[in-house]
Amino acid sequence: MINQQYKKMLETKSVIRQLSEFAAGRGKEIGYENVFDYSLGNPSVPVPERLTEVMIELLQTKDSMELHGYSPSLGIPSVKEKIARSLNRRFGMNYEGIHIFPTTGAAGAVAHALRCVTMPGDEVLTIAPYFPEYDQYVNMTGAKLKVVPANTENFQIDFEKLEEMLTSKVAALLINTPNNPSGAVYSKETLKKLSGLLDRKQKEYGHDIFLISDEPYREILFEGVEAPYVSKFYDNTLSCYSYSKSLSLPGERIGYVAANPKCRDGELISAICGQISRGIGHNCPPSIMQLAVAEVLDQTSDMQVYERNMNILYEELTTLGFRCVKPGGTFYIFPKALEEDAVAFCKKALKYDLVLVPSDSFGMPGYFRMAYCIDTEKVERSLPALRRFVKENY
Amino acid sequence: MINQQYKKMLETKSVIRQLSEFAAGRGKEIGYENVFDYSLGNPSVPVPERLTEVMIELLQTKDSMELHGYSPSLGIPSVKEKIARSLNRRFGMNYEGIHIFPTTGAAGAVAHALRCVTMPGDEVLTIAPYFPEYDQYVNMTGAKLKVVPANTENFQIDFEKLEEMLTSKVAALLINTPNNPSGAVYSKETLKKLSGLLDRKQKEYGHDIFLISDEPYREILFEGVEAPYVSKFYDNTLSCYSYSKSLSLPGERIGYVAANPKCRDGELISAICGQISRGIGHNCPPSIMQLAVAEVLDQTSDMQVYERNMNILYEELTTLGFRCVKPGGTFYIFPKALEEDAVAFCKKALKYDLVLVPSDSFGMPGYFRMAYCIDTEKVERSLPALRRFVKENY
Repeated sequence: MINQQYKKMLETKSVIRQLSEFAAGRGKEIGYENVFDYSLGNPSVPVPERLTEVMIELLQTKDSMELHGYSPSLGIPSVKEKIARSLNRRFGMNYEGIHIFPTTGAAGAVAHALRCVTMPGDEVLTIAPYFPEYDQYVNMTGAKLKVVPANTENFQIDFEKLEEMLTSKVAALLINTPNNPSGAVYSKETLKKLSGLLDRKQKEYGHDIFLISDEPYREILFEGVEAPYVSKFYDNTLSCYSYSKSLSLPGERIGYVAANPKCRDGELISAICGQISRGIGHNCPPSIMQLAVAEVLDQTSDMQVYERNMNILYEELTTLGFRCVKPGGTFYIFPKALEEDAVAFCKKALKYDLVLVPSDSFGMPGYFRMAYCIDTEKVERSLPALRRFVKENY
Repeated sequence: MINQQYKKMLETKSVIRQLSEFAAGRGKEIGYENVFDYSLGNPSVPVPERLTEVMIELLQTKDSMELHGYSPSLGIPSVKEKIARSLNRRFGMNYEGIHIFPTTGAAGAVAHALRCVTMPGDEVLTIAPYFPEYDQYVNMTGAKLKVVPANTENFQIDFEKLEEMLTSKVAALLINTPNNPSGAVYSKETLKKLSGLLDRKQKEYGHDIFLISDEPYREILFEGVEAPYVSKFYDNTLSCYSYSKSLSLPGERIGYVAANPKCRDGELISAICGQISRGIGHNCPPSIMQLAVAEVLDQTSDMQVYERNMNILYEELTTLGFRCVKPGGTFYIFPKALEEDAVAFCKKALKYDLVLVPSDSFGMPGYFRMAYCIDTEKVERSLPALRRFVKENY
């Protein structure tokens, strides 16, 4: 029989997806350039030229069986070692190749990491606002996702509420910094305090609490902002990364889990991920992508446009009276809506061809997300619509 | 805490993997060209030249964001439609794009199909000899794999035993034709009889029984052998395909599930797979590979070497007194060992630098598998070793 659990999931469509479909439909009527589509986090800048060159070189020169043949089930050793060395150089870590498990993007990384360190029935905490797909990743393992309310002051962590919810049932805490949707970057102070709390609770409960750190936006940081490397602060950390955003290739599905060498069973995490991978048929990410990104590990796409767009929008939004925490990175901004019901607010905005995403699916009401990975010229053209929308409705 | 289920899995190493590691180690001692390594099913011929050309063209000419951007979560529509049309043309089916769900190879396809049509606790049947990874795919869904004993006469199906085991608990039957490890291809008669039995049992039990057809070797057929298209015979069929073998790119992870348009919820299967995919973080196969294979759907690598090798080995093995069903396709042959204990048999062979895989992990004792996706020159050089091995031990 068709599995009813999955069939039922079809009824709950992703809000972001629906909005993006609306934008596409409206685009057919009035020209997509006239729809101010802030719905999707799809990078708007090309991959680094060097990446394209490397891929063409691989195709032209490398033996076909070597290039396209089975990658070892835990990933290509030379690629894993290069990733480890790059992380060590940049963040002062001590990874070796065995601590790196290549995955199909951060989705694969987070889903594997979760399975690795939870048993069905365990609780996993995350902190609002959070990326809605976490619901799917956690549900599928049989664990339960619980959401710690947001610190709306600055989108750091509300430690009082976190400690309250950090019971002995909690196997893992899933964080995302720089954060989708808020753009907030956890400070050194936040991470120190977090590490202290988790350490204390591990001792109190007598079992490990893993920190799963989802970091696909690690490389998109704005002027003056530092993103401390989470794993530096807490041994039981699994860092989940994707090249989707930094190299602008979300469709090629390439990322990794990096297990802190000092975490419990640190030298086994990658192999355990391999077993999980066998069972779900995930297997390795594409060989050519493993080999290609290994040659451009310390490069990124030219991502200046995101900061330019953020500055334009932040200024306009605050001028219009929005309460808004200034993003430290990502290509998102997360202002408070001008009425309590963010869904109603975003619906009204659609009449001005402004596609905004209400915050409800990010685990808190009353806010909205704008993904400004679009051309600056379009951001500028959207400002009069934004002004009209606010003026005529609030 | 580290999930103990997955950690325990580390203790049971794949026999094939161990043998292949032995072969690599021995290769370092005596030169890999002197190890007659018949352990791994890794294609030994290059990808079609056109595929490399297409990939380079895509990289040189296609807009980076279009080429490397997010693929829609159910796959790139134009690719799905091309696959559907190719299957319709070749096999007289009526697929549309919505019936095709692109996956990361056949592993991803089978794992998704299984989740789609089973509930935890259900039984899934497969037929010996079978691909050992089926254990992992089925276990991870919470269903139970049961193995129907082989028809050792010709490796078609022992219908008496199948019917005995086809109780009302069975949600799906997982078959593999052309078969790894036997090389047998199910005949039209076998598939007709199978379809009749499944139809009868569906009516008797009042619920669907799905046929999951794993077909990565569909394109590797030997002279005079036809591989009837399984889905033609039975409506509730999910066909699982991989381009790994036909296009020699197992490392690039690209394949699909094709739901028979007449199967239960046929138009929803792809979308249900999409929900499963979200949860396990699998997401789509790499965009560039989706776009590239769509341009060479009706091509294959030059696979004549496999038939040449099969003929040489079949003749030698039967001359040496092995009982052996002549393969109709694949790059495997599956003779009866010359003693009851196939593990002991294969261990003795190692002394002659012959790496053979004992049949126990394929769900039956007493046989061994040879994967002859290697150069013909090496097959020929292995014959004296094979003769010596037999003469000195049996």
